[in-house]
Amino acid sequence: MPARGFPGPGLPRRVATLSVHTSPLDQPGAGDAGGMNVYIVETSRRLAERGIAVDVFTRATSSDLPPVVEMSPGVTVRHVSAGPFEGLGKEELPAQLCAFTAAVLREEAQHEPGFYDVVHSHYWLSGQVGYLARDRWSVPLVHTAHTLAKVKNEALAAGDRPEPRSRVIGEEQVVAEADRLIANTDEEARQLVRLYGADPSRTLVVPPGVDLDRFTPGSRTAARRAAGIPDDAVVLLFVGRIQPLKAPDVLLGTAARMLADDPALRDRLQVHVVGAPSGTGLDAPRQLEQLAAELGIGDVVRFHPPQPPERLADFYRAADVTVVPSHNESFGLVALESQACGTPVVAAAVGGLPTAVRHDVSGVLVPGHDPADYAVAVRAVLSRRELLAAGARRHAGRFSWDRTVDALVDGYAAAARDMAATPVRTARRGGALRALPGISVAR
Amino acid sequence: MPARGFPGPGLPRRVATLSVHTSPLDQPGAGDAGGMNVYIVETSRRLAERGIAVDVFTRATSSDLPPVVEMSPGVTVRHVSAGPFEGLGKEELPAQLCAFTAAVLREEAQHEPGFYDVVHSHYWLSGQVGYLARDRWSVPLVHTAHTLAKVKNEALAAGDRPEPRSRVIGEEQVVAEADRLIANTDEEARQLVRLYGADPSRTLVVPPGVDLDRFTPGSRTAARRAAGIPDDAVVLLFVGRIQPLKAPDVLLGTAARMLADDPALRDRLQVHVVGAPSGTGLDAPRQLEQLAAELGIGDVVRFHPPQPPERLADFYRAADVTVVPSHNESFGLVALESQACGTPVVAAAVGGLPTAVRHDVSGVLVPGHDPADYAVAVRAVLSRRELLAAGARRHAGRFSWDRTVDALVDGYAAAARDMAATPVRTARRGGALRALPGISVAR
Repeated sequence: MPARGFPGPGLPRRVATLSVHTSPLDQPGAGDAGGMNVYIVETSRRLAERGIAVDVFTRATSSDLPPVVEMSPGVTVRHVSAGPFEGLGKEELPAQLCAFTAAVLREEAQHEPGFYDVVHSHYWLSGQVGYLARDRWSVPLVHTAHTLAKVKNEALAAGDRPEPRSRVIGEEQVVAEADRLIANTDEEARQLVRLYGADPSRTLVVPPGVDLDRFTPGSRTAARRAAGIPDDAVVLLFVGRIQPLKAPDVLLGTAARMLADDPALRDRLQVHVVGAPSGTGLDAPRQLEQLAAELGIGDVVRFHPPQPPERLADFYRAADVTVVPSHNESFGLVALESQACGTPVVAAAVGGLPTAVRHDVSGVLVPGHDPADYAVAVRAVLSRRELLAAGARRHAGRFSWDRTVDALVDGYAAAARDMAATPVRTARRGGALRALPGISVAR
Repeated sequence: MPARGFPGPGLPRRVATLSVHTSPLDQPGAGDAGGMNVYIVETSRRLAERGIAVDVFTRATSSDLPPVVEMSPGVTVRHVSAGPFEGLGKEELPAQLCAFTAAVLREEAQHEPGFYDVVHSHYWLSGQVGYLARDRWSVPLVHTAHTLAKVKNEALAAGDRPEPRSRVIGEEQVVAEADRLIANTDEEARQLVRLYGADPSRTLVVPPGVDLDRFTPGSRTAARRAAGIPDDAVVLLFVGRIQPLKAPDVLLGTAARMLADDPALRDRLQVHVVGAPSGTGLDAPRQLEQLAAELGIGDVVRFHPPQPPERLADFYRAADVTVVPSHNESFGLVALESQACGTPVVAAAVGGLPTAVRHDVSGVLVPGHDPADYAVAVRAVLSRRELLAAGARRHAGRFSWDRTVDALVDGYAAAARDMAATPVRTARRGGALRALPGISVAR
């Protein structure tokens, strides 16, 4: 039985969180699981701690999954049967959205009316489900895009596939339908307005957080000893899904460049890659190892599978620098986690990374993706690592999931007030009516 | 204002007909428009004549379309804005089903509860929308598949693409969800049960009809004179979309074979092809003309664009034989139209064609797709054309849209009775609940 606290007046008592294509129970760093999964886990837990129960609906992808999982007190993950458990690709999920919607609505219909006070959808697939639930329940739809196809397609990595038009259209519809859009950064909010025509007054900037209790500074020496890494090693770290978007190839090129510039570094340089192939990276899962061999740094690069948070913190602590060379990131939680552990970051100056990393204070931002520039940046960080490590800890300390949840709850409440005040909506049988472009039927 | 008659007790007053991907206003024989469009036009008109109003929801595909069209008295076509008007392929439509559903539900929500008494969905895309509407309105979902992916994939033409798995899954869900499945023939009903696990007690066989007022026997001489075809010509006719599934290439091979067997026929043989490229046929729209040239019968084959029904009847009347060599047909309305005009048919013995054509009475059925066999069959028909023409008229006379509509109305009423009698459903806010495989959320 989830916690049913009595939060303050105007606050939601229960949130339906939609995460169609990836489960908060999945291990981030593989498949479709990444920062969005961390986001849902961390915000849901903290909402529940404030007495706001959260039901997370996600598609069942295995017959081994328990049907209902209490992820943390007050947070229930409900596995929705919509399509076969295994082998369904992300590109096949649009055809499953009606089935997913039907299941969510039937679940809710088992309760008294008004069971949920808000729908929070994550990623455009969930947003499509979200506006049908919104109409049915007469509650606001709050949507977080996490990534945007138009932005991704503008910054496409070489060899990566553009996102399909059906996703672009689907995103446009969700942007038009949502009562509140949650952007991670000012930049993402501007992209929503500029590229998708979002209403600025319904677009909120809510920075994600980092678990400052879990990602804490610790002894680099101890972390290295546990991992068998010599004290004098120079350790570059990559954490993330292995796919062109995340550009792990740029880090390998950086290491090769550093060795070409300083052959004496060879005995000390280590590149650790934590993550598993995903997306178009699955087309050639050994590509990164092949690249390391081609660059003649096969001995320098070590690959690790995705790690649980407590293990991940040790990787950050053991590293000199974490490198985040992504072609695009709506935020870049990895950069924040690294900084919280006291490890400065070299990151591409794209998307949310200029917010996640404070240039020259907590790390170095690099325009473009030239490994030579990243080699310069890494050396700059190494030359004053202690100063930047302190800056990194301070900068990360400004981001907490509690602040994120404060802002989310405010957004939920504001959306609910708007909905109550809008006269064109009707409440007949849960029907919420609006004339909006994109989705309408002529009369 | 659509007609609001007062049909008998237990009969529906208003039907929501869903036709997501093709409009009943489209010209059959091109694009995605074919027998299904004729089916919706003819059944809707006759339902309205009985006082049962019909609203047909279809996706708007042009900004030129009037938003609402009264197709015939009591039949309203409502154009739903869901995705861009133009350039959206059928494979992109699954991502638009939530938008389509939202628009349909919002339209209905403008009315008093109980506006529609039944939802009738056509093709699996509409079926996905259908079960959400069914849940919301607490009315039965009646579904007609028209074609089935598993059947199509079993009888795939050379070079044709198999239907995607997402369609197969989507069809399975609609079969599980529908309160009644309408099959065109006994064969289709068996396929639904065998391949899709349909419940036989919810599967009705309702043969389509033919418009016996429009497709009437007429003077072959007059029809030929109007078309500039000599009296002594031997005219083979193909009517349908130009795509591998419909196998117009088999007819061309048949003509080539007939000329090889009897060179003297060259001056008299004419092959008329009425239709436009569609589906995978669009990949190579000139392929059929090229094939005719390769076979050395370019002078024998004449291509015509899709025709309105009144013109089509003259084509049938002018022909000696209509050839329907499809790799699959759920029914084969063209065969019925031809017979109603008094022209016998040579057809592949697949799908619904053994029902639509009575072998040796109204035409000849051919197993397989060997042009040599079709040449034999065409000669067999020509040798006793008058007898078969009479048989064709008699056979077609057994199929009328009024009978089809009789059976549909019975099906609607039976489904409504079942729904009223099923205790596990609840009517809270229009919610209709069932535990069904495939679509559920664990509790």
